[in-house]
Amino acid sequence: MATILGQNQYGKAENRVVKITRDGDTHHIKDLNVSVALSGDMDDVHYSGSNANVLPTDTTKNTVYAFAKEHGIESAEQFGIHLARWFVNSQEPIQRARIRIEEYAWDRIATSDANSKFIGSDEVNHSFVRQGMETRVTQITYDGTNWEVISGLKDLVVMNSTNSEFWGYVKDKYTTLKEAHDRILATQVSARWRFNWSDDEQRMPNWEKSYAETRKHMLQAFAETYSLSLQQTLYQMGSRIINHRSEIDEVRFSLPNKHHFLVDLEPFGLKNDNEVYFAADRPYGLIEATVLRDGVDARIPVDMTNL
Amino acid sequence: MATILGQNQYGKAENRVVKITRDGDTHHIKDLNVSVALSGDMDDVHYSGSNANVLPTDTTKNTVYAFAKEHGIESAEQFGIHLARWFVNSQEPIQRARIRIEEYAWDRIATSDANSKFIGSDEVNHSFVRQGMETRVTQITYDGTNWEVISGLKDLVVMNSTNSEFWGYVKDKYTTLKEAHDRILATQVSARWRFNWSDDEQRMPNWEKSYAETRKHMLQAFAETYSLSLQQTLYQMGSRIINHRSEIDEVRFSLPNKHHFLVDLEPFGLKNDNEVYFAADRPYGLIEATVLRDGVDARIPVDMTNL
Amino acid sequence: MATILGQNQYGKAENRVVKITRDGDTHHIKDLNVSVALSGDMDDVHYSGSNANVLPTDTTKNTVYAFAKEHGIESAEQFGIHLARWFVNSQEPIQRARIRIEEYAWDRIATSDANSKFIGSDEVNHSFVRQGMETRVTQITYDGTNWEVISGLKDLVVMNSTNSEFWGYVKDKYTTLKEAHDRILATQVSARWRFNWSDDEQRMPNWEKSYAETRKHMLQAFAETYSLSLQQTLYQMGSRIINHRSEIDEVRFSLPNKHHFLVDLEPFGLKNDNEVYFAADRPYGLIEATVLRDGVDARIPVDMTNL
Amino acid sequence: MATILGQNQYGKAENRVVKITRDGDTHHIKDLNVSVALSGDMDDVHYSGSNANVLPTDTTKNTVYAFAKEHGIESAEQFGIHLARWFVNSQEPIQRARIRIEEYAWDRIATSDANSKFIGSDEVNHSFVRQGMETRVTQITYDGTNWEVISGLKDLVVMNSTNSEFWGYVKDKYTTLKEAHDRILATQVSARWRFNWSDDEQRMPNWEKSYAETRKHMLQAFAETYSLSLQQTLYQMGSRIINHRSEIDEVRFSLPNKHHFLVDLEPFGLKNDNEVYFAADRPYGLIEATVLRDGVDARIPVDMTNL
Repeated sequence: MATILGQNQYGKAENRVVKITRDGDTHHIKDLNVSVALSGDMDDVHYSGSNANVLPTDTTKNTVYAFAKEHGIESAEQFGIHLARWFVNSQEPIQRARIRIEEYAWDRIATSDANSKFIGSDEVNHSFVRQGMETRVTQITYDGTNWEVISGLKDLVVMNSTNSEFWGYVKDKYTTLKEAHDRILATQVSARWRFNWSDDEQRMPNWEKSYAETRKHMLQAFAETYSLSLQQTLYQMGSRIINHRSEIDEVRFSLPNKHHFLVDLEPFGLKNDNEVYFAADRPYGLIEATVLRDGVDARIPVDMTNL
Repeated sequence: MATILGQNQYGKAENRVVKITRDGDTHHIKDLNVSVALSGDMDDVHYSGSNANVLPTDTTKNTVYAFAKEHGIESAEQFGIHLARWFVNSQEPIQRARIRIEEYAWDRIATSDANSKFIGSDEVNHSFVRQGMETRVTQITYDGTNWEVISGLKDLVVMNSTNSEFWGYVKDKYTTLKEAHDRILATQVSARWRFNWSDDEQRMPNWEKSYAETRKHMLQAFAETYSLSLQQTLYQMGSRIINHRSEIDEVRFSLPNKHHFLVDLEPFGLKNDNEVYFAADRPYGLIEATVLRDGVDARIPVDMTNL
Repeated sequence: MATILGQNQYGKAENRVVKITRDGDTHHIKDLNVSVALSGDMDDVHYSGSNANVLPTDTTKNTVYAFAKEHGIESAEQFGIHLARWFVNSQEPIQRARIRIEEYAWDRIATSDANSKFIGSDEVNHSFVRQGMETRVTQITYDGTNWEVISGLKDLVVMNSTNSEFWGYVKDKYTTLKEAHDRILATQVSARWRFNWSDDEQRMPNWEKSYAETRKHMLQAFAETYSLSLQQTLYQMGSRIINHRSEIDEVRFSLPNKHHFLVDLEPFGLKNDNEVYFAADRPYGLIEATVLRDGVDARIPVDMTNL
Repeated sequence: MATILGQNQYGKAENRVVKITRDGDTHHIKDLNVSVALSGDMDDVHYSGSNANVLPTDTTKNTVYAFAKEHGIESAEQFGIHLARWFVNSQEPIQRARIRIEEYAWDRIATSDANSKFIGSDEVNHSFVRQGMETRVTQITYDGTNWEVISGLKDLVVMNSTNSEFWGYVKDKYTTLKEAHDRILATQVSARWRFNWSDDEQRMPNWEKSYAETRKHMLQAFAETYSLSLQQTLYQMGSRIINHRSEIDEVRFSLPNKHHFLVDLEPFGLKNDNEVYFAADRPYGLIEATVLRDGVDARIPVDMTNL
């Protein structure tokens, strides 16, 4: 045989599970999109088509729904840990499980305060509107011994309408860009951060609180950095997270520079004093980097923030 | 000539304009996507290719940006009114202008309260995060005499986790559905409402306040209706708007029934007490209807809520 | 009651049905996305939530799949006619059915000619690759007496790399565009054409042949028209169809002008002799018009080509 | 400093360049989407915002368009090689360039054979329709010494309507799937293959021919494999490529199992003899693997086929 099998994995992707939890009359929602990828002793199914070691992808789907009942969904991370542990521990041929989860956030709908019929009734507690801002993501990997948890978010669009410059750059024969001393800086954040929790003996982070705090620090760093380049802003966002969140050792970003070009209004006898912008689609600058706690190894793959 | 020209229109679509307004050190954003469609004496350009009556689509784009400076963007509706009036009044061959606008909402980023450097400084006032919830839309049409303004929203996803039933329906030879006495009701609202303002002599509505109030009433009606069918909920949403907002005469909705199917956990020895759901993609029920103030004519086209 | 119900319809949307037909060892595919919308005596379900007249959307879905077996899928149009007739004729409260269908085309995969094992065997006849070019669409409407069939396509991207000009247009104070005497003309065709077949007594068109011929004439008209404006090209495409296809009375197009801007290479000491273009996304010109057989009434709605 | 910078890269993404080449009166199109990512001595821009080593992303965009003129676009791979070499060789701080390119294919429009005016004229040679089937992709990486070229495709949808089974798999407490002895096998191929060309001293592959042949072998292997699992089909597709194309050492696939579920028509008294299927969206099985020439190292990243 001139060819051999390399890295491989399989499972059911994009299982959309919604879990309603009742706290008295108050309902809570968890809305997830769960993807399972299993690896192990899978040579035969590739070489000969024998499924003797293959737990069907359909079964991995069933397990997601059954576990939502059996374990509940405390957080996306905790739910992924339950799933990964089960697949590795319950199936001899499976040596590694990777669970990816997207989470969609919901707010409560405020009902009419003038309508006493509903004040204090259970009806105010079961109506929701989907936030739509970022998508929260996590990836849990387990090999039977060690855990790796990488969480993050994507599609969070932010803008500073000033306090951004760009000048002093290299100029070669193809350079035509004019230097900017006051520009809009806007990006659609895709970020992944890796937890240093890796072992059942360690104390597990509070996943929900960690997410809220990490997101807050990241947004504040974006807002508070006077930017000379998007790279500088990126580094500030990453280091702010690591400096404030001891459970996180590494952060990676993909930050598209969503260009807002000042429109030339002079042909119409008008002065554009940083007021009117054209929001361009493509092309866009793309700035990507990893920020690490000093002394740790980088483990977030280069393209993970592009998934 | 065996063929003739029917309805026609042209213009530049999807002009992405962002306007920054400075109120002292506080910045405000308007983020619009503006599409222009002009009609009039355009036979020649279709029959012979003569552009003698054609204002270039490129010029309509320039006008959008110039008007953002000259008139500012008080609201999407007001901005569309400025544009429509200009095209019809300034160009003899143009007899009708239709301006469609999408608007994307932004929130302010809260900066770190512990960081006194930024409290009360101008830096807290120029950083934004895009909301991402619904897209606000409007369409302004002007024929030189009368105005038609149809506003609305799309992609607002809402859910009631209880207080919804579906039973007592027709059963034919292809019916297999089981009746439901407690189900999730979720939909992605696309709505358009028509204002009765149609004439420069009338007092113009407060477009921003009207939007906020209309959205609020619609959401409250969704939350507060004990639903026996999505049609009933739709009608309540529409009539609530018309009963509370005298400036609006007609509302049309497209409400996809975003099915959340209760997962059968019995094969695994588990009871699913309205807890674990599969959120399905396709197919979906689609409920569409117009609700009118009694005595007025319907004018919102059937498919407008599908754009 | 201060509000009343206007136009309304409901049904199951986007039923994805794939039908395999075996002609000896040769398999044929029909791959459709079918959406059902029913109207009639539906006041009660909106006003009170009574479902007594409501055939469930789930039943309309079941009917689609059952009919694929009972009637086969000879063409999207014929399949829609079977469905529309059934809903109107079998359910007293339903007075009108509208069936929308998207169809995805598949080609056969050519297997290795050097591999005699497969030549002439049944294995060459069941492997397919999805074309991916345009999506074919149709809409069938039936009210118990008359039929309306509007077919068409969307997302067919075409380009002429020369034989297009644009000059002699109106210039106002916002005009900066330079005249063009040799430009790229590219568009993404969305077209709908209405058949004059409306009655079971008339001879039904050959839907498959009609589609192939109409598409061919449309493409040829695009390619063969020396264009002074996209409006002129549009009109030629429409009139070519009507002049060649007696079964079609009306055509409507939405043609986005997919701008290809000549890149200014002079800053780099290079001459761009209509060679290197930037393909822009937004904004884009949008040209829309109806072309009619002389003497008939226009019935295709203005926004149908934007669905 | 408690944090340090890890892997980083920057550049302009998604430069849409269309190149028209005239061969006498016959025009040829190359339609690319080019993304540039540069790495090197970039600590300062991240730590302090100094742009002294930063060639602007805008300049990388200009270079793409200038090179389309200066070097032409013989193939996406060759074009990427020109670009990568330039950035690394011309800028001291840049030590590595990665060029990603998507290519969209166009066919010629056949003009009317009965219309002698156009036969043999130049007008038949400049009209095109975009194929829309797969998107061809490539990635070129250069560090000043070695080249890595990984090409491939995405969004190629294929189906076998028979000759696929799935049985003999593991059954655990969550398994409910029934074994299948004749099912549809459909997938949307995402594939990447790595060339062993890595050095300017080696003879460069014929990139255009290599793509056509690789695609052909992959499709034939899909069509000709009697499948007991999608993993087996994947392995056949990969090994067929490596066995036929000596310039390729490694192939990686992501193959979503696009489920086509046989619809249960028994409630309607109908037998579904592998004729009527529901084409599901989510969830889907996802099968991913690398196939290697024996003795070489794997270098295509695990998630590259998910970009």
